[in-house]
This record gives sequence, structure tokens and C-alpha cells, in this order.
Amino acid sequence: MQFTKLRIPKGTQDYYFDYLEKRSYIENKMRKNFELWGYKEIRTPTFEYFESLATGTGLELQESMFRFKDKGGRQLALRAEMTSPIARVVATELRSHPLPMRMYYLAPMFRYEEPQSGRQREFWHAGIELFGSSLPDADAEVLAVFITTLDDIGLKGVSVELGHVGLFKSIVEEAGLSLDEAAAIRRSIDKKDDASLETALKEVDVSSAMKDVFRLLPKLRGDISVTKKILDNVDNENVEICIKNISDTVKLLELYKLDSRVMVDLGIVRGIDYYTGAVFEGFVKDLGTALGGGGRYDNLVGEFTGESIPATGFAIGVDRCHLALEKQGFKFPLKNSPQILILYIDQELKGEAVKIAVNLRKLGLSTEIDILERKLTKGLEHANKRGIPYVVIVGKTEFEQGEVVVRNMEKEMQEKVKIEKLKNYFQK
Amino acid sequence: MQFTKLRIPKGTQDYYFDYLEKRSYIENKMRKNFELWGYKEIRTPTFEYFESLATGTGLELQESMFRFKDKGGRQLALRAEMTSPIARVVATELRSHPLPMRMYYLAPMFRYEEPQSGRQREFWHAGIELFGSSLPDADAEVLAVFITTLDDIGLKGVSVELGHVGLFKSIVEEAGLSLDEAAAIRRSIDKKDDASLETALKEVDVSSAMKDVFRLLPKLRGDISVTKKILDNVDNENVEICIKNISDTVKLLELYKLDSRVMVDLGIVRGIDYYTGAVFEGFVKDLGTALGGGGRYDNLVGEFTGESIPATGFAIGVDRCHLALEKQGFKFPLKNSPQILILYIDQELKGEAVKIAVNLRKLGLSTEIDILERKLTKGLEHANKRGIPYVVIVGKTEFEQGEVVVRNMEKEMQEKVKIEKLKNYFQK
Repeated sequence: MQFTKLRIPKGTQDYYFDYLEKRSYIENKMRKNFELWGYKEIRTPTFEYFESLATGTGLELQESMFRFKDKGGRQLALRAEMTSPIARVVATELRSHPLPMRMYYLAPMFRYEEPQSGRQREFWHAGIELFGSSLPDADAEVLAVFITTLDDIGLKGVSVELGHVGLFKSIVEEAGLSLDEAAAIRRSIDKKDDASLETALKEVDVSSAMKDVFRLLPKLRGDISVTKKILDNVDNENVEICIKNISDTVKLLELYKLDSRVMVDLGIVRGIDYYTGAVFEGFVKDLGTALGGGGRYDNLVGEFTGESIPATGFAIGVDRCHLALEKQGFKFPLKNSPQILILYIDQELKGEAVKIAVNLRKLGLSTEIDILERKLTKGLEHANKRGIPYVVIVGKTEFEQGEVVVRNMEKEMQEKVKIEKLKNYFQK
Repeated sequence: MQFTKLRIPKGTQDYYFDYLEKRSYIENKMRKNFELWGYKEIRTPTFEYFESLATGTGLELQESMFRFKDKGGRQLALRAEMTSPIARVVATELRSHPLPMRMYYLAPMFRYEEPQSGRQREFWHAGIELFGSSLPDADAEVLAVFITTLDDIGLKGVSVELGHVGLFKSIVEEAGLSLDEAAAIRRSIDKKDDASLETALKEVDVSSAMKDVFRLLPKLRGDISVTKKILDNVDNENVEICIKNISDTVKLLELYKLDSRVMVDLGIVRGIDYYTGAVFEGFVKDLGTALGGGGRYDNLVGEFTGESIPATGFAIGVDRCHLALEKQGFKFPLKNSPQILILYIDQELKGEAVKIAVNLRKLGLSTEIDILERKLTKGLEHANKRGIPYVVIVGKTEFEQGEVVVRNMEKEMQEKVKIEKLKNYFQK
């Protein structure tokens, strides 16, 4: 019985002290960039009806959801991603809100999967959703927010791989297959696995020219010029539209001077079903997996109410960013909290010590006061152990002169300071 | 089927736009005060093993938990409060961390109860926990953080009712009853329900003098002088210890000049089982229920590992505070987001418009750019509808002069501004 009492479930984590302070640093930087681009926060429930959370997401994500029933037998689940819940809000409560609409979120998600490095069963996503524009301007903006956010948190060498889910669908259509029939081909291309692709191609009745196109797809990775190679091999209007969309998006990213950060990858066929257009993933060399990704999902809002609204967005795995920053040796600017510990030598002086603490807090200085009636040496030992930079000592002799002793713990130096001058002392 | 797809479960809520901005204002103020007092944030998993979350919490809270099983059949639950999970962390991972230890949290909790005003099934708690001191100094600090936090968010007329759970236990002991035998008496005193108290007293074999003491308890509400009345009626060492503890705590609050905010209520017998000492709840007149509460729980850490650490803390219902602020007509200082919308009249100028947006964001100004290739009138209409205060219009004639038109939407005035002077324009 003791077993589960002292442990937390696999794939969950307690966050505290320096680790959480670093995390908050990352999160605050992300929020700030989202807000600078005009995005406003949204929070949706941690659990919802499974049917609602499942909308548009596809079987793989649905199967990863933590599900349970309410007392009325209705299927509930913990949210596994935020795009679908936000689309629900836009389709219902915000139906008549002026478009475009920009929203961001930062919240834990839940997926019952095997935990990996940087991806627990409870993990944090930060993301944006941009509703109301079908122009590549929206795709480019979302990509620009994605890249600048990863830059802003301090990551070095962020790059993005950009593809288009319509491309694969159009080629499948041109080949005369259904998406179901092409499922194995899709999986092989996603994994860039030549051997399994050959097996999958043997299973379908498709011209050898089209088989070559499927073989080509995972290899079309590089600058914008790779888009020409697909046009040389397929003559299909929808394929042309997809390619033009990618080219336009990259051209718009030139305006943001971010085009050099984007690599076109026509073999991207992302997992979540709701994507309909340009899709992307972000990387740094130091992490084997994507930091996050996103894309266009023009039909998702319509899956709730029948009325479609064009949309695009992304989700960043905050845990993965944290891990990547650690791997890159990023120096997080941590605050000392508290900056000051107040000790009093004489019980009678407790009231004065409290008064000093109250005043230091008014100056915005994080201040602790001794609550153990500790002796001076014990109090100083404690400050040392905890790395508290300043100790204010309220002693009887000094107090009678209107003074306290301030000890700089790092420099191991102390000086007497007039109580009314403490403000100046700590503000310098 | 459409039914659960478009709705969210009873007792859950979507938060966005002004409502969420107000909420963030409250949360940031709370965080800031916690940090000024030297508290550091902690986050625990949203779901844990039921056995772990249940530790020390009592049947009522346990029965309110959303429970489900993992694939191995282990009982999981969504957290219903944070004190027990934090005590788990302190008992295990932070076992050897120097004491005292100050921690705070701000997170959603989950209870399967009938939703009420200000209390949903998913609701937010902000709270602190102070480990390592059994002195009333710790109780007083926690009360001071509680009151100043509620003050800081803008609530008027915050008051606190302070009692001691040991008092009831000691009286029950003195009366020769077990806590189980006194359960009905406890419930009646908690509700201050005289009729049910009489019924409960009839059921137990207790001297009439002791029955009078139980009758007295819910009436002992007022300033510190009420503590004398209980000492006049019971002669028991443990009762004396409890009363001294309350008196000492109130005396320490005088140092913080907060004693006038505290009303002693010896009839407080709070619901959660883990409390062992001074307990309190906070109120404002405008809300029928408590805003939050807390108290001392010296045995909870020990319930995990056998080694006790004295502790005290509180939880504030953030939703209730939000509701109370609205009822008090509090004017939340909302930011306009974005402050600026950039429109461009000529497609060729898109690149210049993007450049201006990038630069305004560098100044910390939240800036949107048109992503619908809208005509000027449509763009201005949109800015009006959304309450965006400034529109920057990039037109060909002005651009050739190195200028843009800045329109102040509220004043309905516009002027030409040199592009390199935009910084000065918006910083004034």
C-alpha cells in the first residue's frame, strides 16, 4: 500500500525550485512574444467530453487520451491537445466575434503514451491559433511567431521544416487511391523508411510513374527549389496549388528575414488528422525530436457546426524546449528568492524586525523573517545553505542607535546601516 | 451525438478575452505577494495515485475526487487540493531540504460536487505552505500573507475568522467521547445549527456541564476576549494550550497591524481531516461563502513517511475572489491588446509594413498586421470593432516621403509621422 502513496504515476513530474524557475522563465518569454504579436490567452477545461476532444483529431491521438466516465456514464477525457478545444470555442461561444482572431495558450496536456525524454504523459504545450485568414500571410505569420518564440527563449540554431499535407492527398488522388488505401505509404514516408515504403507500394495497384513520385516525396528536402522537382513529375492542379502555397509562404517569410531558417520538406505528412494545408515542425540539432509544430486546419471549426473558418496555428512542447536549452548550456537568469533574511537577536525586537520586513517587501524585495526564534549563528548558517544573499540582523545595541547590521553573505562582509537608510542600501 | 460535441461538462468553463485578462491580473498580484514573502512556486501532477492524493484528507474530500484507472488497474484521481501532494513532495524528494521551507501554488483543482456560484467542478486555487515551524510565528505569517494577498488583489473589507481544531478535539476528549462519537456534534457546530446540535447532544452520554460547553462553542465569536469564556467553563490543559496558541497568533498579528482584521471563532471545526491547530477562513461581506482558508497540519507529512514536520498554509479560491471583485465593482486595469494595427494600401508595401510591425514589437508594443489584404475602410472598421487604439496606415504617397499615417481611433484624428520617428510617437 505504501507503494503508490509515496510515488507519482509514470510520466508525471513534480516541478519546484530552480527547475520550475527556469521553466517560468521560458513560459514568460513565450507569453510575451505571443502577446507582442497581438495574441490573447485562452484556457479551456482540463477534461471535456471525449466526443468533443476527439473532433478532427484522428484515431492515434484519440487512443492516447486518458478517458473516464462521469456519474451519468458520459465519456470524459483529459485534453491531449488544445487546437480542437479552441476550435470548439470559436465555433460556438465566439461564433460572431470579428475575424481574424488570435489566441494563445500555455497549459498541460495528457497522453497515455510511453514516456520519452522531453515528453511525459502530462506535458506542457504553448501554442497559438490564428482564425479567419486563408492567405499565406497567415501561414507566414504563424511560422514567424513560431521561430521568434523559440529564438526568444534562448535556443540557438532553430530551424523549421515546411511541407503541405494537401500535397500527399493530391498525389494519392492523382494515383487513383483512397487515403485509407495509402495509409501504409503515408506511414513509410512519415518515417522516411525506404524499405517499408517499397513493401507498401507493392500492395497497391498504381502506375510505376506514380510509384516513383511516392519514392521521390521523402527525398524532396532542401531549399524552395525542391518544389520544382515535384512539378516536373506530376501534372495535377491541386499539386500546383499546394506548391504555390509553400512558395508564397516562404516568400513572405523573406519579409521577416526568416526564410533562411526554413527548409522545405515535401515528405512531411503529419499525424493529426485536422491539418489541411501548410504544415511544419521545428528543430534544434541538440534534440533528436521536434520542439513543436503546426499548420493549417481549415475544416476543423466546421466539424463542430458545419461553418468552416480558415485557421492555422502551432504547439510547442515546453518540456522539450527546456531540455534543449539545458543541452545547449543556456544560462537561465535566476532570481534569488528571497533576497533578504531578517534575524533578530532579542525577542523584544520581533516587532521591529517585522516592521523592517514589511517595509522591504514594499520596495519589491523578497524578504523572509526568522520564524524559529533562531540564534544568530543558526540563522546565518541557514542563509548560507539556502544561498540567501543578504541577512539583516536586528540587535539591541544597534537598534538603540536606530541601526541594524546588514551582512552580505557572498562577500562575507557586514556593515551597520541606519534603519531609515535601508531603502537606499538595497536600491543601489 | 452533436450534444456533447458542442458543450463542455457541467462545472467546467472556457476562459478568454477580458474575463481571462482580469483573472490574470488577480493571479499575478497573488504570485507577486507570495514571492515577496519568500515563497517559491511548486507544481505537482494534475492526476496522481488516489491513495496518495487521499492521504490525510478525509472521506468527504476523497468522495469528491474524479477517479479513474490506468491500464494496470491502479486507481488514479485528479487532484482535489494541493496541500497533500505538496506534503508528499516534502516527505520524499525534499526530505533533506533545509527548513523552514516556503512554497506556493496556483493551479486548477477538481471536485465532483454540485457547482455553486464561484465554485465549479474545475476551479483554481492559489495557496502557500510553510513547513518547519511549530511556533505561532508561522501561523501569524501565513495569516498575514493570506490577508495581504486578498487586500493586494483589490478586495475591500477582508476579514478572517480564526479558530483551533485542537480545541474541539480536546473538549471531546474531556467529555470522554471519541471523535467518531462526536461526529454529529461536530457537523452541527460547523453549521452553527442549534436544533441539530441538540439532537446530537441527546445521542451522547455526557455531563450536562460538558453539553453546555458544546452549546457555547458556536457562540464564542468575537475579539480575543471570547477565549476567556471557554477557559471559565473547561479546566483542561490541552484546551489551555489551544487558547494560548490563538492568543499568541493574534498578538503576533498586531506586529503586522492586521489583528483588527481577525475575529476569533471558537466554533470553527474545518472539513479537511489533516488540520491539527489554528485554522481560519477569509470573508468579504459581498460573498456568501469563504474566499479561502487554511491552518496548521503538523501530522500530514508524517502520514507519508512517519517523520512529522510542523506545517501551516492556506488555499484561496481564485474564482471566488474574481466573483467578489466583480460584485464590489472593482475596476480591473486591462491592457489593450493589440495597441496597434498596421494596414497597407498597396500590396508592394507589404514588406515595409512587416518591417514596421517588427520594429514596433521590439519596442514592446503589441502589434497586429493585416493578414486579409483588406481595403482601408474595412481595416479601420475592424480596428473600431475590436477597440484597437492606433492604426498605422502604410500608403504609397506617404511612404515615398518616408512617412506613414497614424490614426488615433479614439480621438478620430490622424497625422503623418516619419517612419524613423514612430518610436518617439508611441513612446510618448
